[in-house]
Amino acid sequence: MFNNRTKIKSILDAGETGREVTVMGWVRTFRNNQFIALNDGSTNNNLQVVVPLGLADDDTLKRITTGASVKVTGEVVPSIGKGQSVEVKANSIEILGDSDAEKYPLQPKKHSLEFLREIAHLRFRTNTFGAVFRVRHSLAFAVHQFFNERGFVYLHTPIITASDAEGAGEMFKVTTLPLNSAPTLEDGSIDFKEDFFGKSTNLTVSGQLEGELGAMAFSDIYTFGPTFRAENSNTTRHLAEFWMIEPEMAFYDLEDNMNLAEEFIKYLINYVLQNNADDLAFLDQRLAEEEKSKPQAERNEMGLLEKLRFVVDNNFERITYTEAIDILLQSPAYKKKKFKYEVKWGIDMQSEHERYLVEKHFKKPVIVINYPEGIKAFYMRQNEDSKTVAAMDILAPGIGEIVGGSQREERLDKLISRMEKMHVPVAEMSWYLDTRRFGSVPHAGFGLGFERMVQFVTGMTNIRDVIPFARTPQNCEF
Amino acid sequence: MFNNRTKIKSILDAGETGREVTVMGWVRTFRNNQFIALNDGSTNNNLQVVVPLGLADDDTLKRITTGASVKVTGEVVPSIGKGQSVEVKANSIEILGDSDAEKYPLQPKKHSLEFLREIAHLRFRTNTFGAVFRVRHSLAFAVHQFFNERGFVYLHTPIITASDAEGAGEMFKVTTLPLNSAPTLEDGSIDFKEDFFGKSTNLTVSGQLEGELGAMAFSDIYTFGPTFRAENSNTTRHLAEFWMIEPEMAFYDLEDNMNLAEEFIKYLINYVLQNNADDLAFLDQRLAEEEKSKPQAERNEMGLLEKLRFVVDNNFERITYTEAIDILLQSPAYKKKKFKYEVKWGIDMQSEHERYLVEKHFKKPVIVINYPEGIKAFYMRQNEDSKTVAAMDILAPGIGEIVGGSQREERLDKLISRMEKMHVPVAEMSWYLDTRRFGSVPHAGFGLGFERMVQFVTGMTNIRDVIPFARTPQNCEF
Repeated sequence: MFNNRTKIKSILDAGETGREVTVMGWVRTFRNNQFIALNDGSTNNNLQVVVPLGLADDDTLKRITTGASVKVTGEVVPSIGKGQSVEVKANSIEILGDSDAEKYPLQPKKHSLEFLREIAHLRFRTNTFGAVFRVRHSLAFAVHQFFNERGFVYLHTPIITASDAEGAGEMFKVTTLPLNSAPTLEDGSIDFKEDFFGKSTNLTVSGQLEGELGAMAFSDIYTFGPTFRAENSNTTRHLAEFWMIEPEMAFYDLEDNMNLAEEFIKYLINYVLQNNADDLAFLDQRLAEEEKSKPQAERNEMGLLEKLRFVVDNNFERITYTEAIDILLQSPAYKKKKFKYEVKWGIDMQSEHERYLVEKHFKKPVIVINYPEGIKAFYMRQNEDSKTVAAMDILAPGIGEIVGGSQREERLDKLISRMEKMHVPVAEMSWYLDTRRFGSVPHAGFGLGFERMVQFVTGMTNIRDVIPFARTPQNCEF
Repeated sequence: MFNNRTKIKSILDAGETGREVTVMGWVRTFRNNQFIALNDGSTNNNLQVVVPLGLADDDTLKRITTGASVKVTGEVVPSIGKGQSVEVKANSIEILGDSDAEKYPLQPKKHSLEFLREIAHLRFRTNTFGAVFRVRHSLAFAVHQFFNERGFVYLHTPIITASDAEGAGEMFKVTTLPLNSAPTLEDGSIDFKEDFFGKSTNLTVSGQLEGELGAMAFSDIYTFGPTFRAENSNTTRHLAEFWMIEPEMAFYDLEDNMNLAEEFIKYLINYVLQNNADDLAFLDQRLAEEEKSKPQAERNEMGLLEKLRFVVDNNFERITYTEAIDILLQSPAYKKKKFKYEVKWGIDMQSEHERYLVEKHFKKPVIVINYPEGIKAFYMRQNEDSKTVAAMDILAPGIGEIVGGSQREERLDKLISRMEKMHVPVAEMSWYLDTRRFGSVPHAGFGLGFERMVQFVTGMTNIRDVIPFARTPQNCEF
């Protein structure tokens, strides 16, 4: 047995002195041949290890470099240095693994996020990414806890799918056929019977349709898995591979759906406020520093922590799409022609419009409902006005759309006529329509982009910095 | 707001009478124009709804058919019928969605698992699959709770990967190139620069290598995500798409690894024993019925619940591979030539060997360690004997291998020489080797096949029956 260590977080949290502990971790810095700042990833706060004069020979001292791993046994004692209440006075120290100070890419200085993206395999060892990925972990756990407490069933919907009916975007093909020498039919088209699944298959863009099948039996289900878009979008807001949470609830109308989504987002933020105080304090400070380098006009009005508390403490604004368009048309921004894209009823609102609504007009998260049917998917419930559907998007400051959802069309005849109008293959979707044939019920659901939520909570502006290894056009490293 | 219902599980669990409730769900049966067995998926136990004479007109009564969805408001009263302590006396009843009794595929009778696999979109509505997928949910939640309680960071390792170094099996290709008309280089090979990621990419077979990168910063991480094998294995034990849990721990040796894996499996089983008593009782009964149809010699010695309690209450057996081979060579089965495959030191044990060890010899889960290096992956730590590596497999009764893991080779020179010997491209794996260059530490990890664990706990013999929508050769429905 090797693992007799105590985690640094528990030593610092307990603040209990007088006991002997073994700690293991990586050296962040080593000052005056005496003070090791040691980190084991359990917290951003380093443990100060004091190496008494004469404990280690010169050779060992030379090997205590930034990035090296060490095992220390010693006594927890009160610290007289600032920044920590306790430290460890070493009784023994052992080098586990060296780190050549000249070659180690993570020097003890500030690196740019761009540089750290290039060495994503090492960036977890920095304070910023330590905090970001511990927060990401907490958010993921809070997702599961939220739904588990409410009796939702976690459903693993399939990743490889033959269905392309959702129409949510470009898809990646999945195949075992040899590229450029796949067998063909007489008409020259690919003979997919020879492919692994005997048909053409893709990576899923959403688990919703399969999720609905689960909701028609368990009432309340959710998915939490990877989804994919083969879109050539090289932006700070898009990934080719990202994680999504999609709850689906039988016996819910649009209002129930809004209530759950708002409760959910607040729950996630509250969970992190309670469980990641150190990480959020660090990220709050980091963002404040970053803001200083921006021109006054572009700075956020609120700091990170302030923003999170504000979201938790206030109701989300709820407006219809029609009201949203009216607000935009009445806005000074519109009158001064500051919007790049056209504003009129029927448009798919652009990022600039959404940001105006949340950041300038309401200054809080906004739920927009009842969108024109022409810009929304076939499965959304048709409203009485014959123009709009019972869709809802939640827009968040600094992020834009963070949730998209709707009440689903539960009436078989209306669903089929919409599918036909939108050229969705009705016959292939017979399994989906069975939920409307046998015991159909009002139901609703939404999708939360997990990385956007992590961005919102951590204040990271580039989505590539909140997923361990980003997949984007021309980029699939590690 | 539509969702003012009370879930059936909470009504039955509370057993509180005298209050008015609204319930919504699907009709399982309707007897004597009076008694509805209503299910909303929160539990296998149906709520008996009594429809008083005269409450509903004939037309409504005719529409209360198996599969139809209804909304009932009524009073919770003591039940005189057997099987439940309370029932609901309806004050109002509303049909939400009809179900044509003649066309509904799920008749109120026993269907074969094979038939239900064909209608996987409806099988969630049966008792068997209701229980299986609520247990699956609980196991997934217990996974997250176990690691969260121990300070592990949940790391979402990538699904699309350009790395094929693991060598764990055949991979699915991921591409946006047109099949059969992909651009080519001068030598006729595919020009992957034109592909979405600018290189050849696949679906991951394991998140371990990326997980190790996380462990070298956070100490303890785990993954829980989908993994893929493009193997043409049409068996009851293989899926092309399945979910895997892979914890990776810095400062762990093989013994620490074994301890954690055993603790983990027991934790999962205990969690389900405590939280899914009704579902397990149903599955226990179901399995007992199924066993009756088998010849005496093939029946399991223990029932499902008995087996689960036995696993929780007893230590796993721990033996070396060499000891395992000796046991097999000494066995009556070997002497009577009952094994189909050869037994000698150096073999990759077959299912029949593993099952002999756990089911006949030890009659409990067995951890086998120190396998011959020739049959194990390049990253496993080389033992002093120069013949074996610090691998561990956990074998479970009825399932075979449920966990595979190892201490990892943390010594850079030994790792590189092993990689060269096994033709793993060292240069491409430079990011992985960086963990050994900069602060390398002893570390270990394992993978648990989630579906195999669900099989073990539910007693389902076909792996296709424990995942919502199975992906297998020539099969990718829904």
